Amino acid sequence: MVSFLTDFGPDGPAAICRGVILGIVRDAAIVDLAHGIRKYAIRDGALLLWCALPYLPVGVHVAVVDPGVGTARRPIALRAARGDVLVGPDNGLLLPGAGRLGGVVEVVELAEPDFRLPVVSSSFHGRDIFAPAAAHVAAGVALERLGPRLDPADLVDLGIPDPEVRPGAMASSVVYVDTFGNVKLAGTPADLAAALGPVSPGDRLRLTVDDGRERRRMSVAWRSTFGEAAVGEPLVYEDSYGRLCVAVNQGAAATALGLVEDAGVLIERA
Amino acid sequence: MVSFLTDFGPDGPAAICRGVILGIVRDAAIVDLAHGIRKYAIRDGALLLWCALPYLPVGVHVAVVDPGVGTARRPIALRAARGDVLVGPDNGLLLPGAGRLGGVVEVVELAEPDFRLPVVSSSFHGRDIFAPAAAHVAAGVALERLGPRLDPADLVDLGIPDPEVRPGAMASSVVYVDTFGNVKLAGTPADLAAALGPVSPGDRLRLTVDDGRERRRMSVAWRSTFGEAAVGEPLVYEDSYGRLCVAVNQGAAATALGLVEDAGVLIERA
Amino acid sequence: MVSFLTDFGPDGPAAICRGVILGIVRDAAIVDLAHGIRKYAIRDGALLLWCALPYLPVGVHVAVVDPGVGTARRPIALRAARGDVLVGPDNGLLLPGAGRLGGVVEVVELAEPDFRLPVVSSSFHGRDIFAPAAAHVAAGVALERLGPRLDPADLVDLGIPDPEVRPGAMASSVVYVDTFGNVKLAGTPADLAAALGPVSPGDRLRLTVDDGRERRRMSVAWRSTFGEAAVGEPLVYEDSYGRLCVAVNQGAAATALGLVEDAGVLIERA
Repeated sequence: MVSFLTDFGPDGPAAICRGVILGIVRDAAIVDLAHGIRKYAIRDGALLLWCALPYLPVGVHVAVVDPGVGTARRPIALRAARGDVLVGPDNGLLLPGAGRLGGVVEVVELAEPDFRLPVVSSSFHGRDIFAPAAAHVAAGVALERLGPRLDPADLVDLGIPDPEVRPGAMASSVVYVDTFGNVKLAGTPADLAAALGPVSPGDRLRLTVDDGRERRRMSVAWRSTFGEAAVGEPLVYEDSYGRLCVAVNQGAAATALGLVEDAGVLIERA
Repeated sequence: MVSFLTDFGPDGPAAICRGVILGIVRDAAIVDLAHGIRKYAIRDGALLLWCALPYLPVGVHVAVVDPGVGTARRPIALRAARGDVLVGPDNGLLLPGAGRLGGVVEVVELAEPDFRLPVVSSSFHGRDIFAPAAAHVAAGVALERLGPRLDPADLVDLGIPDPEVRPGAMASSVVYVDTFGNVKLAGTPADLAAALGPVSPGDRLRLTVDDGRERRRMSVAWRSTFGEAAVGEPLVYEDSYGRLCVAVNQGAAATALGLVEDAGVLIERA
Repeated sequence: MVSFLTDFGPDGPAAICRGVILGIVRDAAIVDLAHGIRKYAIRDGALLLWCALPYLPVGVHVAVVDPGVGTARRPIALRAARGDVLVGPDNGLLLPGAGRLGGVVEVVELAEPDFRLPVVSSSFHGRDIFAPAAAHVAAGVALERLGPRLDPADLVDLGIPDPEVRPGAMASSVVYVDTFGNVKLAGTPADLAAALGPVSPGDRLRLTVDDGRERRRMSVAWRSTFGEAAVGEPLVYEDSYGRLCVAVNQGAAATALGLVEDAGVLIERA
């Protein structure tokens, strides 16, 4: 199983990479995870890997959101504790997903020419470096043969903030605003329950939002489904990826509530 | 073979479901039927299943267009006479497709926790209930193990209208307007031929349209290909799904001819 | 391995073709190459095949961009020198890609009813003729059983211009403008090096553009990566498909430099 995430769009380049993989390991089961990641949005890609990887079988996961292609950024492959191998650029894309698979056990730089295409372009490492590496790993090549070991502590880290859980409060922040204006927060419902105890539909939460310029407070109900909120009513719920999300039923929470990426959000009971 | 239709869009959630399926049955051949169904448009999804299933091999077909997720609507799996198993919500989505595969032979509610993911969210039953059920069926689990039998007559029916075939006239209606403004009618060219006898390219048809407010008549030629009509000329033809369709060559029939969903359309020879 | 390129969009019709293929050859590995080709844009499809096929394993490649469906244009299957079989309409779509696989060795018309679906519609030959032919070839049916041999010299040729390489100059032309306004030229970096000797990042090239109405000259630097150019600066580089491309960093070269499809572009050292 080889999963595949890029910002390439669905056509052409992604298909060429699939062809490269199948040319090396004919019976690979390639799962397209996403090719519609916003161009160069490393964090969006990292968050989707964070969401999806726990639900995929153990396998090889190639991810390419790579604004630094052609520069000195290193191409890497890393093994996570669950047994998966993640392949992609060393720009922070892979680390949050690796974290959900138990963390990084081992990492190598993809330097060995035998496991690249014969000609490596300056602008299409997905085809020339990452897809071949993933295919060779899926075919059974040991990670250490792909190139020299790196120290996991030296990998580029995006610094996606973790929530801070304290008795009675969870300090979170906005990590992502989706195309519907739904606002994704750092942390999970389990983190929230660790801070506040079990939350039930209808429980009112006080959100203190700090965007660096001002602090505002709002009271929002926890809901288990979108449909429990009235049209236009804000809610906090667990989104389909298992993340904490602030939304407005049939509206755009980011605009309605003035929530922007990286704003701090302190959650307490109202 | 597991086919897969949703309104999720191509990325992320659909891929997670593919991962869940492959985690249960490693060599599943997953065919993505459509992930661009208009959000919550159960009828659009049902019509695409109706079009596509006869061309797919016998297999398991998962479909998720599910505005009622998190409410009391039942998750179901049904066996069709051709041998296929259809998995999805009991909201009418599956029935027209099952009808084209010979009708419903047996149906169960997906209630057995052993064939769901360990944690069932309130908003992502595609991942937590439908994908696992489909995978277990593809792996050979008998339908009756998934949960209690239901009476097929109790399933929710969308009530997509059937055409009425009489000597000299076929009473149809608009079931779908696509993004190009092409107007899909209930019934097939075979139904039309049963009513009017064989129709040949150039034969003129009289359409009497009744949208509930007024009745209008128009004369439109039957065409075997789009290209037989002049630019801007309306035509009736068999679309690529085997449906009767009213179109305007390089135009939008819905706007040009004032055709809206659910309008009645009586077809006679002009 | 069956690769698949169409202008159908991702949903429905493409999936039906996949179903038809899997119904004939259950373990086909279908690689979706592109379904977002601009409607009826034969040349766009032909160029994508030209780009992609060298990177795919030897296999069967079905391509359907077919404005002439339902007319007298012939459905064909051809064998390329590398061993691949290309299936599609005889409208020029397949030839450039076949050329990159060593050229056409043998070609037949898809006339044999045994290798079509029982009913052939006038508007969906992808499903009724091309997908079944590709599947039967993938299953091992010999090409000559699909229908009568044709003379490769009789195939429709799009006439995509080849570059002309002379000492000190390469005569090329604009073959494609992509959605970002990047301008693809006939020929490859290897052609350019054959004309000018090795080119290095920063080398200045003189482009003489002739759009039939006027001739203009411009000086543009060769770059190995996009990022080497300043924002708004034009560059010539090798795009991710191995084509020569004129671009403007974070801009649209077609507009900025007045480059249109089919314009002649003579490249010399500045």
